[in-house]
Amino acid sequence: MLKVVIIGSGNVAQHLAKAIDTTGQAMLVQLYARDPEKLTDLPGEKITSSLEKLANADVYIISVTDDAIAEVSSQLPFEGKLVVHTSGSVALDQLDGKNRRGVFYPLQTFSKNKAIDFSKVPLCLESEFENDYALLRTLADALSKTVYSIDSKQRQALHVAAVFVSNFSNHMYALGNAICQENNIPFNILNPLITETADKVSTLSPIQAQTGPAIRHDQKTIERHLDLLKDDNQRNIYKILTQSIQDNG
Amino acid sequence: MLKVVIIGSGNVAQHLAKAIDTTGQAMLVQLYARDPEKLTDLPGEKITSSLEKLANADVYIISVTDDAIAEVSSQLPFEGKLVVHTSGSVALDQLDGKNRRGVFYPLQTFSKNKAIDFSKVPLCLESEFENDYALLRTLADALSKTVYSIDSKQRQALHVAAVFVSNFSNHMYALGNAICQENNIPFNILNPLITETADKVSTLSPIQAQTGPAIRHDQKTIERHLDLLKDDNQRNIYKILTQSIQDNG
Repeated sequence: MLKVVIIGSGNVAQHLAKAIDTTGQAMLVQLYARDPEKLTDLPGEKITSSLEKLANADVYIISVTDDAIAEVSSQLPFEGKLVVHTSGSVALDQLDGKNRRGVFYPLQTFSKNKAIDFSKVPLCLESEFENDYALLRTLADALSKTVYSIDSKQRQALHVAAVFVSNFSNHMYALGNAICQENNIPFNILNPLITETADKVSTLSPIQAQTGPAIRHDQKTIERHLDLLKDDNQRNIYKILTQSIQDNG
Repeated sequence: MLKVVIIGSGNVAQHLAKAIDTTGQAMLVQLYARDPEKLTDLPGEKITSSLEKLANADVYIISVTDDAIAEVSSQLPFEGKLVVHTSGSVALDQLDGKNRRGVFYPLQTFSKNKAIDFSKVPLCLESEFENDYALLRTLADALSKTVYSIDSKQRQALHVAAVFVSNFSNHMYALGNAICQENNIPFNILNPLITETADKVSTLSPIQAQTGPAIRHDQKTIERHLDLLKDDNQRNIYKILTQSIQDNG
């Protein structure tokens, strides 16, 4: 049984903590949280707020904000153990070299109030030493059906791609929501369209899947839409993305 | 049994034609296509390429490109019948007034090679006369579980919102795909993230669901991402959408 310690108490840390104990092949021995009172879902005896009191484990997973990873890794009161972070945008060598370094990046968007099926979360692994990769792979295979070897350079690019397909898509939903609200239309009328648009690119390439006035070069509709948009930011984004679709289509 | 004639042979026309015959409450009596040889899935005897030979029906559904709707409606060789179009962005009064006018707008993205479950497609109805609304409602209820009364002004706004949540989101997938290709990463690694991002907004508002460096004001990550993006268009879109998320969050 792989022993895991998680350092951090954010969304990723909490979702991961819950998932590990369900695998049957790994166990969460401890979770470090600066503010333990935030963690109501985990048994109190597993939680510590002191790095000095960290339990012995096969792998230490640092899941804190990107900017804090380097500092937290250098504060660990031991050497030569396997320490990984969960960030998409931080290189492996940002971890303190006194421990064996690795990355365990779950490529998913985690929200506080929404459960995640970890078996469907792609896990992107990297390690300093080959033996450690095998250990991370065992843990990852116990959690998820899709595990990838991704180096630091690829992971940086993947993280940018994830910002486009997730954060920026979600912002498109936010802008659509604002337009609905201004016109007394319930936003949930758009849910089937949103999920179908997302599902499509599992079988078609995004270029093949592109529909709408921009790719049709339907200038009359585009102009009617621009007339209707009174918000400068909405109109600006509409113009720039229409142009980008036409240039890349 | 409601008799339906469809005028047009695009994606919407073909998906609708197939769905109508499965309802048990409506039947497709005929489909008009300028180029009938494109239609390989429908029985040949139901297809005509002459507007003069249109069969008798309870409702005529014009499903052609937006710019052609007015002209096709004025070419119909009859008066006083119920004629609707399927466009999100064309007003009801663009149809020729010699017939009773209506709109039957399926709010979904239709692609040639992907089947659609019509029962999950929101149908947005509008009619010139109250009696005709009842008829359209009967047809719509037979096809779909979600039917809305949406007037021409609302539908215009809804269509713009649909461009944001569907066409522009899909373009975010296309940009993510391009970044993956440039870095030898398989795009399908992003599929779970894409579908989860879409699913989230059925239970959370898009503002609540927003994650990522922009909403966290994580300036270091944003700058690393901008450094990594070598394409001017990608970088420009990254900047504008990051700013928009921060201004609207």
